[in-house]
Amino acid sequence: MARLVMKFGGTSVANIERIRNVARHVKREVDAGHEVAVVVSAMSGKTNELVAWATEASALHDAREYDAVVASGEQVTSGLLAIALQALGIQARSWQGWQIPIKTSDAHASARILGIDGGELIKRFKERKEVAVIAGFQGIHEETGRITTLGRGGSDTSAVAIAAAIHADRCDIYTDVDGVYTTDPRVVPKARRLDKVAFEEMLELASQGAKVLQVRSVELGMVHNVRVFVRSSFDKPEDIDPNASQPPGTLICGEEEIVEAQVVTGIAFSKDEAQISVRQIEDKPGVAAAIFVPLADANINVDMIVQNVSEDGKTTDLTFTVPASDYVRAKETISRSKDTIGYKSMDSATDVAKVSVIGIGMRSHAGVAAQAFKALSERNINIRAITTSEIKFSLLIDAAYTELAVRTLHTLYGLDQA
Amino acid sequence: MARLVMKFGGTSVANIERIRNVARHVKREVDAGHEVAVVVSAMSGKTNELVAWATEASALHDAREYDAVVASGEQVTSGLLAIALQALGIQARSWQGWQIPIKTSDAHASARILGIDGGELIKRFKERKEVAVIAGFQGIHEETGRITTLGRGGSDTSAVAIAAAIHADRCDIYTDVDGVYTTDPRVVPKARRLDKVAFEEMLELASQGAKVLQVRSVELGMVHNVRVFVRSSFDKPEDIDPNASQPPGTLICGEEEIVEAQVVTGIAFSKDEAQISVRQIEDKPGVAAAIFVPLADANINVDMIVQNVSEDGKTTDLTFTVPASDYVRAKETISRSKDTIGYKSMDSATDVAKVSVIGIGMRSHAGVAAQAFKALSERNINIRAITTSEIKFSLLIDAAYTELAVRTLHTLYGLDQA
Repeated sequence: MARLVMKFGGTSVANIERIRNVARHVKREVDAGHEVAVVVSAMSGKTNELVAWATEASALHDAREYDAVVASGEQVTSGLLAIALQALGIQARSWQGWQIPIKTSDAHASARILGIDGGELIKRFKERKEVAVIAGFQGIHEETGRITTLGRGGSDTSAVAIAAAIHADRCDIYTDVDGVYTTDPRVVPKARRLDKVAFEEMLELASQGAKVLQVRSVELGMVHNVRVFVRSSFDKPEDIDPNASQPPGTLICGEEEIVEAQVVTGIAFSKDEAQISVRQIEDKPGVAAAIFVPLADANINVDMIVQNVSEDGKTTDLTFTVPASDYVRAKETISRSKDTIGYKSMDSATDVAKVSVIGIGMRSHAGVAAQAFKALSERNINIRAITTSEIKFSLLIDAAYTELAVRTLHTLYGLDQA
Repeated sequence: MARLVMKFGGTSVANIERIRNVARHVKREVDAGHEVAVVVSAMSGKTNELVAWATEASALHDAREYDAVVASGEQVTSGLLAIALQALGIQARSWQGWQIPIKTSDAHASARILGIDGGELIKRFKERKEVAVIAGFQGIHEETGRITTLGRGGSDTSAVAIAAAIHADRCDIYTDVDGVYTTDPRVVPKARRLDKVAFEEMLELASQGAKVLQVRSVELGMVHNVRVFVRSSFDKPEDIDPNASQPPGTLICGEEEIVEAQVVTGIAFSKDEAQISVRQIEDKPGVAAAIFVPLADANINVDMIVQNVSEDGKTTDLTFTVPASDYVRAKETISRSKDTIGYKSMDSATDVAKVSVIGIGMRSHAGVAAQAFKALSERNINIRAITTSEIKFSLLIDAAYTELAVRTLHTLYGLDQA
């Protein structure tokens, strides 16, 4: 007997037929003797429809009212799935965020979960063998009693937070991919599905562009040590053995569960990058602050930062990357601070990509990055900037070479499928 | 300064443009200095969509889950209208049934309102000049903390109940007709809009087939003495004078407000009737019970009842009407009890209609019904059965004569427009 959280996204509950399919997935686990809490998203398309209405009513809408409108999508799915489960003879009831309650901050539309009391859910597992069907993405701000939402993709975060609150053995995220891959299989057909990924690795993979799981949910899993299992919602419920030691998918877990860590686990890449270089900055204390504080104030996320001596040998060049969507604003912000910073010129590029190599094994292996520099130079791929951390290094290259670079590194680190 | 409840149905909030129009109606009253609570239905079509999903998930669905699903429709509208009001510079917030709370019984899908604490709403009128935008049709059962709904058309009931709770001066029901008419204008083009109708009259009009207002909401208005005003949601908000002593529409109020009561106020009719006659019943005590108790047990509403001596002069004939939809079940129920009842034959008709003449003035006027009998007989309209009460009498006739009978009576009682 295990205690499970099962999370299903919008495509898995897009219509009643699919909701019935989800019910059969749940029944499989219940029949195997497991205690189950299900977390559901809104039917696909519904959230977009609700957001569009709120925006049409007023472009500058009150986030509290936006939350009341948008949270209704998950409410509908939770009730429908409870009905579908009951039709299969399973004891089930729906729970809205305010009913459990899932207490959050009052940052409407992007609230953070503050606490969940899992006591009542656990009591019902024990006393009634009741499945809890929980509306994801939403909560309540206790002081005001108003509905909050966690921001886009928040249902993953709801699922992991609930798993922590009820001390679940595993949090299964059913999604439209069957796990986490060494890299995007559309770019590298030889990409392999990973059986296990450490939280730290998944954090890097997620924030570097692998779109399987929300970064926040991985962070939460790491902090509360919730084993998160990414698996396919398209597998037929009847074909799955609920007692298999590990069904097909990827387990995101603590390092201690990964017996023999690969040096490199995966390769992530992102083309939504822009590079800005500020040239011939007077080399004096406080220059970095003069550049990056205004960017932070403008809510622009700076990623890679590289500092070099300028070609005149006396001043400094500073290169950094920002999300492509913030590129214009970032340049304007720097221009406005030209006098404070004291630089000669600024140049920039948007046709750049960031490729990241990730693996907890890197900690104990030297020379991993050096291998990459050599292999890429053999392919005539120019590296514009480099950053490194304990378990990852990232390279900024010309966007045109992205696929070539990813494939080269994938082979280099022995990630190709046999 | 007055305190108003304004209720808008599904067609009035069918899309964002119409929700903006509703917001302008509300603004008009706020600008005139009034304190306003708005009650809204789901956008038209939404409730049907949600009900269809619940039914598709399982024909025999849990009413508690049905309520969680269906209540989401009003939640969406309340948030959207609050946004639209704020866009016009009006302080507003949405309220779900569980937030106020609107406490109800646990009869899910047809719950009754048990109590509403209007204190917080009134406090916000005073302190913040805030408009309360309330999701109609829903409440919460306090012990279980679960969402309830009041049953179809329940938003009218919500509106009147809230008006009672906040001691509103008037409850305005905005609808797709501009008031209550002496009879259906599609049948009698000369039908007149009534300025005022007494609660008792409206109850008879509503239950006899005038589909402007839910019977429950009229009952509630009568018990709590809430003045209910039926008016058109299609009038342009800008064309209405909020300070007019009475804008176009019909006020449903206590008799004391109706200075000079007409003898006859209106004529209602219904074609959804079926007549069943049980012939040659042995005339002994307990026969009526033997017929009507099984019908009541089968949840069949018996309306008109007429008893006559049979043609053989020794036994009794009993004629009664039931809703056309219960006709087959009613006949079966009687057949099953044939031995207990002891009757010779049963005949029935579905091509019958009930025409009702209503007016509180009847109490003090004799011979009102006699005039009708005479006028109808001059038109060769045969009366199959008659029932009377203090303020109404109803006639069962052949359905083919419905329109003729209604027009004849409308003219007879001086209800035609000048």
